[in-house]
Amino acid sequence: MLLLHDNIESGNAYKVRLLLSLLGIAFETKQYDVVNGETRTKEYLENINKNGRIPVLQFEDGRCLAESNAILYYMANGTQYFPQDKWQQAKVMEWMFFEQYSHEPFVAVAKFILTMLPEDTPRRAEIPTLHEKGYAALQIMEDRLEEAAFLVGDSLSIADIALYAYTHKAHMGDFDMNRYPAINRWFSRVEKTPNYIEMF
Amino acid sequence: MLLLHDNIESGNAYKVRLLLSLLGIAFETKQYDVVNGETRTKEYLENINKNGRIPVLQFEDGRCLAESNAILYYMANGTQYFPQDKWQQAKVMEWMFFEQYSHEPFVAVAKFILTMLPEDTPRRAEIPTLHEKGYAALQIMEDRLEEAAFLVGDSLSIADIALYAYTHKAHMGDFDMNRYPAINRWFSRVEKTPNYIEMF
Repeated sequence: MLLLHDNIESGNAYKVRLLLSLLGIAFETKQYDVVNGETRTKEYLENINKNGRIPVLQFEDGRCLAESNAILYYMANGTQYFPQDKWQQAKVMEWMFFEQYSHEPFVAVAKFILTMLPEDTPRRAEIPTLHEKGYAALQIMEDRLEEAAFLVGDSLSIADIALYAYTHKAHMGDFDMNRYPAINRWFSRVEKTPNYIEMF
Repeated sequence: MLLLHDNIESGNAYKVRLLLSLLGIAFETKQYDVVNGETRTKEYLENINKNGRIPVLQFEDGRCLAESNAILYYMANGTQYFPQDKWQQAKVMEWMFFEQYSHEPFVAVAKFILTMLPEDTPRRAEIPTLHEKGYAALQIMEDRLEEAAFLVGDSLSIADIALYAYTHKAHMGDFDMNRYPAINRWFSRVEKTPNYIEMF
């Protein structure tokens, strides 16, 4: 059976759990305490991921694949969650690289600082900058979702799964999501997908 | 003809120029002064890229594709620079997402601060942290390239193109590249590819 090296608080890991659930693929998960270095042990770095991060999807023959969006691509390619049209495929990639470069480092990190670190952490000083950059990313999503039901084409793809993960928990990073009615309607559409599972 | 919205100092834009050259595809480029906001004008945001970044590849019918690694995927898919094997495709994606999340924000940003900003910029305070994280990424590349000639499989792919761009200019961000003999041998292999072009 597939083994997901996992952390319950990680939106990146949740992306993989959500896709596997939508696809009806059974998997086991192994939880890691990321804050306390459980993904930085010698054994983890040597055998699972040299980059010391979750999620990693491990196959029965031992092969490991890291990077949440690479896992989404590998597992979705050939299914309804990755388009067949080449231009739409390119647009899925555009949104997934946008997510990792212009969205996750702000939206996810604000949630991490406010929910996973002590209340007196000096990293709270980063919040105004994280909010400025995170709101810019959310506005780009809102603009697209005012015009279309999903991020690419007219059905759910791994672009939506990749962006949904941290966006639907952005309020935990003190983002005011009432500003984004189109994003909220899109949340509802994603959540109505058969076999949808919640993050927590 | 293809039009690349471009900046000569950007490794992300250079990735696209390098791939198009290797593929023998003609293109025009339009240069933008990124530091002085030329990619943040109303016209650019409305017509080229809402995210206000280069590179963007524009097709003759006006369609625009942003995100350097999404452009690499779209243009390389079906050519020798994107493998046919599904597992190798996944590994290409793993390296390209690694590049945007764990490498570029440190290796490229150190170069940007040291070469594009004034000498007295307060951002120089970021350099020690950028070096720590950038060296960690470079070591992961070195470990792979000690065992193999290229990052995925046994020939040049867009994984190599994506990582080569900023790695071969990392010394401009004061990274000591003498630490990485395998990376230096890989530079030479990339540079021997027919139709290779230099960044500057």
